[in-house]
Order: sequence, then C-alpha cells, then structure tokens
Amino acid sequence: MRTEVAIIGAGPAGMLLGHLLARAGVDATIIETRSEEYVASRIRAGILEHSTVRLLDEAGLGKRLRAEGQEHRGIHLQWPEERHHLDFVDLIGRSVWVYGQTELQKDLIAAGHPVTYEVTGTALHDLTTGRPYVTFTDAGGTARRLDADVVVGCDGSFGPSREAVPVAARRTWQKTYPYSWLGVLADVAPSTDELIYAYHPHGFALHSMRSARVSRFYLQVPAGTELADWPDQRIWDELALRLGHGQDGWKLISGPITSRSVLPMRSFVQTPMRHGRLFLAGDTAHIVPPTGAKGLNLALADVALLAPALVALLREHNPTLADGYAEAALRRVWRSTHFSWWMTTMLHTGDDPFDERLKLAQLQWVTSSTAGATGLAENYAGPPS
Amino acid sequence: MRTEVAIIGAGPAGMLLGHLLARAGVDATIIETRSEEYVASRIRAGILEHSTVRLLDEAGLGKRLRAEGQEHRGIHLQWPEERHHLDFVDLIGRSVWVYGQTELQKDLIAAGHPVTYEVTGTALHDLTTGRPYVTFTDAGGTARRLDADVVVGCDGSFGPSREAVPVAARRTWQKTYPYSWLGVLADVAPSTDELIYAYHPHGFALHSMRSARVSRFYLQVPAGTELADWPDQRIWDELALRLGHGQDGWKLISGPITSRSVLPMRSFVQTPMRHGRLFLAGDTAHIVPPTGAKGLNLALADVALLAPALVALLREHNPTLADGYAEAALRRVWRSTHFSWWMTTMLHTGDDPFDERLKLAQLQWVTSSTAGATGLAENYAGPPS
Repeated sequence: MRTEVAIIGAGPAGMLLGHLLARAGVDATIIETRSEEYVASRIRAGILEHSTVRLLDEAGLGKRLRAEGQEHRGIHLQWPEERHHLDFVDLIGRSVWVYGQTELQKDLIAAGHPVTYEVTGTALHDLTTGRPYVTFTDAGGTARRLDADVVVGCDGSFGPSREAVPVAARRTWQKTYPYSWLGVLADVAPSTDELIYAYHPHGFALHSMRSARVSRFYLQVPAGTELADWPDQRIWDELALRLGHGQDGWKLISGPITSRSVLPMRSFVQTPMRHGRLFLAGDTAHIVPPTGAKGLNLALADVALLAPALVALLREHNPTLADGYAEAALRRVWRSTHFSWWMTTMLHTGDDPFDERLKLAQLQWVTSSTAGATGLAENYAGPPS
Repeated sequence: MRTEVAIIGAGPAGMLLGHLLARAGVDATIIETRSEEYVASRIRAGILEHSTVRLLDEAGLGKRLRAEGQEHRGIHLQWPEERHHLDFVDLIGRSVWVYGQTELQKDLIAAGHPVTYEVTGTALHDLTTGRPYVTFTDAGGTARRLDADVVVGCDGSFGPSREAVPVAARRTWQKTYPYSWLGVLADVAPSTDELIYAYHPHGFALHSMRSARVSRFYLQVPAGTELADWPDQRIWDELALRLGHGQDGWKLISGPITSRSVLPMRSFVQTPMRHGRLFLAGDTAHIVPPTGAKGLNLALADVALLAPALVALLREHNPTLADGYAEAALRRVWRSTHFSWWMTTMLHTGDDPFDERLKLAQLQWVTSSTAGATGLAENYAGPPS
C-alpha cells in the first residue's frame, strides 16, 4: 500500500486532517486501532472555540453544528453565595459553541474519508528518511505495510507515534493533579443557560450540557476515586451543594444518570512536534486538564496549521510551513497549557488554607476587573482566527 | 498619661496616622521600641502607588516627594533574550513613584508629631472595654500607663499588638517561600530608566534604584543563604547574568556596595483587623513578599481608611466607618496579597520543569496581551484613588 500521508488515529484530529488533505487533492490513509462504533461514541469535550467553529465552517463541516449546536456568550463563574456571568461577546466580541465531540466525530465520518479500523501492532519506520512507512495488522489478520511521504501521529497518549520519536530527540513536561473529575451524563434538561464553573470548599463542580435534553456534570474527586463510592443520590446531593441549589432561587433539576466515569487530570507536552517525516498533532503531543475546554480545540488548531503545511510540502515542494509547524503549534499549546493549569488550580480545592483564600481573591478579581475578565475570556474563547 | 488614640509603632503607618489625626484635631500618642535614628534609616520599600502619592499630597506630605522622587511610567519585564516595557500610563492612565521609605519616614518625622522612642515592655489592656490602656517602660526606666479611647497597632510582625487579639478571636493565613532576596545598595547611577524585573533560570533579579546616584539590586537566593557566601564579585557577576548584561547592547554598570542584607519572603494575613477598641494596620495585620511592591502602600492604605473612621468615631460618635474598617481594608489586603504571590511565583525559579515552562508562557502572555498587561498594571500601580 502506498499513500502520500499516513495518518495514525481516526479521532477528530486525524479525521479533520484527512478531510482537509483530500479537499486539497492530497492522498491520505487513516488507520485506527478502535472500531468505528467506539470512536464515534467516545464522550469527550463539548466546547468549541470561536476559531474552531470558523475552521469547521471553512472545511464545509459547520452545517449541523450551526443548526444543532448552541452558541454561548460566556460562562458563569461562582463560589459560595456568589454567581457571576462573564460575557465573552461583550468583553472580546467572540462566543463559544457547545457541540459534543461525538457529534463532531459523526460529521467527520459522514464527510466520507475512508478509515481502516481495528488495526493492531502499528509501528512507524524510517521516519528520518524520505521514505517512511507504517506496518500494522488489519482486522482480518493480514500484515500490512503502508508507504508514505509523511506520517502524522494523531493517536493520542497511548498510540505508538509519541514514542516513535527517539528518547534522545524528545523532551517532555508533565504534571499530574491530585484530583480527578467524576463525570456523569443525565437525561434532564440543563438547569442553566450557560456552563457554571463552581469553586466550593468541597471541591470544584461544573454544570455543562450536551443538548436541550441532556446535561453533563463534573465533580472534583480525589485521584483514585472508585465509581462504586458514588451512588446517584450522593452525586446529586454533592452537585446541588457545590452548584448552589437554593441560592437566589436557583434550582438544580436531577434526572436519570446514563453514563458515569472518572477522568484523571494531567498536563503533558512533548517536543518537538516534528521528527523527520513524522508530525505529531493533538493529544499525541499535548494533554491538558479539561477545565479550560482546550483539548479538542488545540488538536484541531494543530491540524489547521498542519494541513496547509503538508499541501505546500507535497504539492509545491515548499517546506517553509512544514519547517515552522512545530514552533507555530507550540506557541498555542503553551498558551493553552498555561490557561488550563490556571483555570484548574484556581477552581479546584486543596489542603492549604492560604492557597484556598488566594483562589477566592483571584475569583473576585477576575469577576470584578475588566482586565481580569478579558484575560479569561480571550483565553477561553480562543484567538480571533 | 491620657490620649484619645494610642498608636503603637512609629513606622510609616503609625506616623501617618498620628499626622492625619492631629490635622483633624484628634489627640494621638505614638510609642516606639526603636530609636529615632534606627526607624529613620531602615531601608525598605521604594515604590509608591498612584493612590499613595495622592494620599500624601492630600496630607500635605507630597512636596519633597514630588521634587525629589522619580515618576515611572511602568516597569521592564524580562527573561533570557527578551525585555519588554509595560507602560502603565498608556495601559491604565496611572504611574508609580520611586521614593525610598527612608525619605518618606524623614518627611513624616519632619511633620512634627511627637514620638516616645525606645520604650520597652509594651502591653495592651482592656481592649474590649471602653477604657483600653497601654503600659510600657520609657527610655528613662520609668513605668508608664497610657489611657486611651482607641489603641492602634502599627508595630509590625514582632510587636505586641498582633498577639493582643486572643487566639480564639483571630485567624491567620500564611506562606513561607523557599527563597529569600539578597538585597544590596550600590553607589552607582542606575543602569536603567525604570525597574527591571528579570526571570532567569538562575533565579529572579530586580534592578531598582533609590536616586540618580544610588542603585538597589536584588537576587533570588535559597532561604537560609549567608551573606558571607556572596562576595561583591559574585553579586555583580550574577546580576550581570540574570539582568542580561550584553543583551541588545545593554550594560550593567557596577559600583561600590554600601549595604547588603538577606530578606526572607513570606505572606501573612491575620483577621479580624479590629478587636474591640484595638485596630490593626499595616504589617501588624499583613505581610507580603516584596515582589509586587505592595507592603508600604498597603500599610498607608489601611491608615487612609482608619484615620477618618477614628475621627468619625471620636468626634461625631459615629461608629459606621470604624465598624466597616476591617472588611474594607481586607478587600485591598487580599487583592494585594494575591498579586504579590502571583508576581513572586511567576518570577522566581523552582525545581519543577513544567512549572518553569508555564512561567515563561505566562510572561509571554502578560507582555503580548493587552488584557494581561493591563491586569499587571492595575494591580501594580494600584487603584485610582
């Protein structure tokens, strides 16, 4: 088998890259270890930055998002006794959209780029030559070799691409947070118009949503928490407390919980994002805790830089954009990594009374100073284009 | 002895309070454990916020400051290879003034409010009655009792006022940083027009100044550092490296070092700032690390709230302002405590590579985003009035 661009991983980054390359007439082959059903049903991020929505529009993928997604002007930021609305549109002229990753994945699959699912044993070879290739075993058990001009790793934390960069050539930065998120989906209309980010002495809580009938909730829990310790009633009681049920007449409406999981929280960056003919994109090169809603946006922003770079490299033999990809992508990666850490540490509780009091001081400043609110808004809603 | 307001401590807070009360016709007596020479020569803060300068102007104490102080439009913020100027006047319309605490102390002493220096054994009594009093031994060895309507503790971390609030009635928050500042004064013209705050892998450095002929420098050193480990040449070498001597043609000019000291770095807040007839002001109630230049400004801001509150209480028997003092003062205290912590942690180096990389990301954001720069400016230059 031969292709111009071998893409490893059929998540949003890999799928969007295949789509953008195909539109530019570049041949790409996508391989994926999971099944189509698994990939399409993974519940992940749900907030799209302003520039992500524009990117999807320009790629011809914005139609259903525009029809079925929800545009939000901002977020609610709260702590016990106080809830404040930050209006990003008023502050910086940009909104965000709520549209689940599952929905976006369906749109990307519908766009029609073929994927070879359920491959095993993927390995990357000869990356620093002009003839890299990928080997794997297909779903039928046949060993395959895929020759390419370029390999792109969109296979996240657990795929082989990240570690295909030799140890001596890569550097990693990471932080593991001492808490996780207990996330649940519930069949109930959201009790809020926009997301509520709540700091509470018991821990952070987030009221998010998937649609007019499905709500998404998160609770800060200690790292290592078992789902068995959280029966439904405990979840609802804790959400009601942390989100301020009864405060100023606001009510949290509960409903049947249809899904629950515990998500560890960590930050991770690996550099460089290019090694010879291998390019890394999305979670492969960087993981952020979900508090800032950056993970999906950052993955698609990588692809927005990488697609034209690969077109220029392969069609016009112009390496300028490809040579600048890693540095350009990392500027945004570090900005989002810092913002995600900042939102996370500001909103999650810990053991030090001084640190906890500072978080309140910071929340008060962010919600009372135009500069403070604008700083949060421009990071959360993302850059203009 | 009898007075209306017994002020413990003749630093800037106590002296300004005595001066403001006297101008309003309220009798105040100031006692101080140190000698006048010691108090007048203590080298401390040198940056006055916009609102501090206005306060001193209004108190009739701004004349020499306006003539001999230096108005700065902003600061330089730098890290290896990059120096950026943040222009507070452009960003928020407010400047800061460089005027040493020693100079301000001279002005306050010259204003003429009498001080009983070199007292010992100061103790506070009956603070929750309407007849509080203070006992001490004067410089001549005579035991004294000072009856008052109100006692104000301006005696800092080591004076008796802070601990005169019963343990059960007070709460403290604190943080000790793992580094100190090695501070030196040098008889050399500053090599910069405005202060340089430098992040460097070796540690933070600050180039400040006292006058056109005297420069002030600080180096981050590990907590517990001995002065003997820092001969002059090592100090100059390290300042040159961290401040970027040779970078873009900039030069650090060295000169004779006339004073050196190691300053521990900590944050501390004690609440409430009022207990019965005792009011706490300045360092007595709160300590900030010096990175944000907040300590002196915060002390004088307390006094600006307290003086009219005591005048209303004692002259008009109106307790409203006095009853609101602690809460009003603490709003600014927590804002400045957060800002001081933020500047400190952003600029000082530690052991975690991820944290260090985030500091660079934050510095890049603060110097490239108007919202980021404005947030720093409004905190550093302080509120409008």
